[in-house]
Amino acid sequence: MAEFLYGHWAVMEALRAGRRTLEQLLITETVEEKGLVADIIAKANERGVNVRRVPRRIIDDLASGANHQNTVLRVGPYPYADVESAFELAQKRGEKPFFLLLDLLKDPQNVGVLLRVADSVGVHGVIMQERRSVSVTPAVVNASSGAVEHLQFIQITNLVSAMKDLKSQDVWLVGFEAGADIPPIDRTNLNMPIGIVLGSEGEGMRRLVRENCDMLLSLPMRGNVASLNVATVGSIALYSAWQARGWQGWEHS
Amino acid sequence: MAEFLYGHWAVMEALRAGRRTLEQLLITETVEEKGLVADIIAKANERGVNVRRVPRRIIDDLASGANHQNTVLRVGPYPYADVESAFELAQKRGEKPFFLLLDLLKDPQNVGVLLRVADSVGVHGVIMQERRSVSVTPAVVNASSGAVEHLQFIQITNLVSAMKDLKSQDVWLVGFEAGADIPPIDRTNLNMPIGIVLGSEGEGMRRLVRENCDMLLSLPMRGNVASLNVATVGSIALYSAWQARGWQGWEHS
Repeated sequence: MAEFLYGHWAVMEALRAGRRTLEQLLITETVEEKGLVADIIAKANERGVNVRRVPRRIIDDLASGANHQNTVLRVGPYPYADVESAFELAQKRGEKPFFLLLDLLKDPQNVGVLLRVADSVGVHGVIMQERRSVSVTPAVVNASSGAVEHLQFIQITNLVSAMKDLKSQDVWLVGFEAGADIPPIDRTNLNMPIGIVLGSEGEGMRRLVRENCDMLLSLPMRGNVASLNVATVGSIALYSAWQARGWQGWEHS
Repeated sequence: MAEFLYGHWAVMEALRAGRRTLEQLLITETVEEKGLVADIIAKANERGVNVRRVPRRIIDDLASGANHQNTVLRVGPYPYADVESAFELAQKRGEKPFFLLLDLLKDPQNVGVLLRVADSVGVHGVIMQERRSVSVTPAVVNASSGAVEHLQFIQITNLVSAMKDLKSQDVWLVGFEAGADIPPIDRTNLNMPIGIVLGSEGEGMRRLVRENCDMLLSLPMRGNVASLNVATVGSIALYSAWQARGWQGWEHS
């Protein structure tokens, strides 16, 4: 079934990645062809995607009232990956496997931020359970600024089984949880085949998920407010792991 | 002039901090007195604040349609701090000064996330320019989960003058900017009297602000998406600085 991606970066990255079927680009008829909109249209032409100018209310409808920035891309379904292809990507790059596991996250905004960071640090695979979690909806694509179009996003039936599978392949699972009795993030060396495990908003990790972690770490807090958002905790955890890998894969002058 | 704070944590932390004039707590008449709502009412009683049950449409009006969670607190203006009181706080705690400087940030959500992290890592003062930036509005208090009620938030006329003032008091100003030619965040020791400087969404730091930094650092990126959100970059920068200070002030078992 066709999906309608919306927002400049979501549309741009879907066109760039080219992993979905690209069906049609719809642009509000009154919008000027300049800046990022011009770049998007050029990229669509390059990809051989039909471009159509339509009244704004059609775009509003297709984006279900979200902030679409006058741009909608009609595409085929998201190409979910599997765990094996994530291991292959790590091997191809000559890197230790690097996974992100999300336990029942519900908020597209949080998942979007985490996917953007996962792309930025070179995660090989993001694993989420199919049921009771968000999937790669247009809202998530938008919140990730299109990053998920380049990532290997893996939907599995049961997170705990996937954890056992990863452990059998020598991936070290590190769960993040607040708590005064949990060692802080810099207490261990994260430069190993790793899966970072994050619990859901408010609830944290489910008991079995926590018990299947090889290690728990916390992000210290000294303030008055009781908790940090999972997107904040996860972003810092992912960057700590990449820093431990010596910014492997970073191209700089 | 009275302000109307909304949202469970915004209201709770304003009551806890007790730094504003606390005028009246308004709760939707149909809401049950349990969980966090019960805690908020108990705290209001403890503080001698009048509690009133009102129809939901009144709460809707006072919160200007925002997600108020049936809870509004009528308060006096936010007690802005000054740079001197931030230095005093550092001295009182026996710590090297730790500042966060925000250049023309516009999005209450981003500022809210950064304030929550600033509280969490023990920043002594947050500095923003009065004009062309967000101030401590109810939306910012809400987005910070009430953290700003405990922080020293300093509004100044001109950010560059404030930077010169900090430098004359031996604070090292570190600006964060994306760029392949800028050294990565772990290239220097952040354990010193420090001010972390962040540019605005999209635009980055203004030229004079950048030029008045003692040093620029970047957060490496290797992905496909061109930039990270300022709230993500700032959260990681603040935690790196606190980690360099050995999690000073963290109480754990």
